[in-house]
Amino acid sequence: MKLYGDKQSGNCYKIQLLCANLNIDYQWCDVDILGGDTQSEAFLGKNANGKIPLLEIAPGEYLSESNAILNYLAANSRLLPNARLSKAQVLQWQFFEQYSHEPYIAVARFIKKYLGLPNARKREYLQKQNGGYKALDVMEKHLAQQVFFVDNQYSIADISLFAYTHVAHEGGFDLRPYPKIRAWISRVQQLPGFVAMG
Amino acid sequence: MKLYGDKQSGNCYKIQLLCANLNIDYQWCDVDILGGDTQSEAFLGKNANGKIPLLEIAPGEYLSESNAILNYLAANSRLLPNARLSKAQVLQWQFFEQYSHEPYIAVARFIKKYLGLPNARKREYLQKQNGGYKALDVMEKHLAQQVFFVDNQYSIADISLFAYTHVAHEGGFDLRPYPKIRAWISRVQQLPGFVAMG
Repeated sequence: MKLYGDKQSGNCYKIQLLCANLNIDYQWCDVDILGGDTQSEAFLGKNANGKIPLLEIAPGEYLSESNAILNYLAANSRLLPNARLSKAQVLQWQFFEQYSHEPYIAVARFIKKYLGLPNARKREYLQKQNGGYKALDVMEKHLAQQVFFVDNQYSIADISLFAYTHVAHEGGFDLRPYPKIRAWISRVQQLPGFVAMG
Repeated sequence: MKLYGDKQSGNCYKIQLLCANLNIDYQWCDVDILGGDTQSEAFLGKNANGKIPLLEIAPGEYLSESNAILNYLAANSRLLPNARLSKAQVLQWQFFEQYSHEPYIAVARFIKKYLGLPNARKREYLQKQNGGYKALDVMEKHLAQQVFFVDNQYSIADISLFAYTHVAHEGGFDLRPYPKIRAWISRVQQLPGFVAMG
């Protein structure tokens, strides 16, 4: 199994963290987003959408989208609950992450940390702050009732949300007003098989 | 089972179409997005993220995110394949839809059809065109090899992508250069239990 990814990407880190948690072996294939690797003809032949992470399950058999890969790899493991509603709640948080969280927090981080907050994107960066804090508010509210996102048990829903939340400060987000989120971050970091990003 | 939704929303239509396909009964509860209903205190108590569709499975038990709801309702039905990889491919297309398709095509449609393309949002509307066409390109390429998105079988992956693709023209997208997509749209419309949007 090969994983095409970039060590700076939180979406790729989700898969690294899951594989560390579950002790899954894979071969890492480095792809440089800023260098344009994902837009090369060779890569577009593997994933027409030109995005990483990309899992090569068998030669020529690919799966894209970080959260789809997590669901695939976690099937029948302790990181994906079995009950129908719990499984759907995991997906609920993962779709929340991709629609209401990542486009704000990850993109603000990308503009600040990797592009160095150029003037041309400062307006976009500032526009991302509101949506990012809204997502953090929703998470804080939920974590006031639960220690992990679904069924009080660590699952791939936590992995999906952890990836960019624990580096939200790199996108200019202040986590000090979010004690429940900060406690949850520590909780995830203390689990067996945790690996840091990068 | 209650479904909170707005008849103008493609995300809500996904659930209506699935329920029609599978003959699932539910009670429709109208929520007016433009009227601010999703931001009322009462609604935020049901879904802190303030979005529809929202499924009330039992009194006080809620599930949000259109694609999570589809996976929940389609579990063990003919609209969700059983094989591990196929199931993950369904999710791959659904995450593609929420990240690379909906934020362009649905948002452009919203600005044009429901807001009447006001000057203040014209720039944003024009910026959405590129990403929307990129998503359509990816779909066209895939549909050159398959009649439906996963395993050549109609599934909730098709429902997710159909919702906003078949009304893409309302967002200013020209589907004439996409013969495979147009054929797939007809195919979905001719299936038993199809219902039109609205």
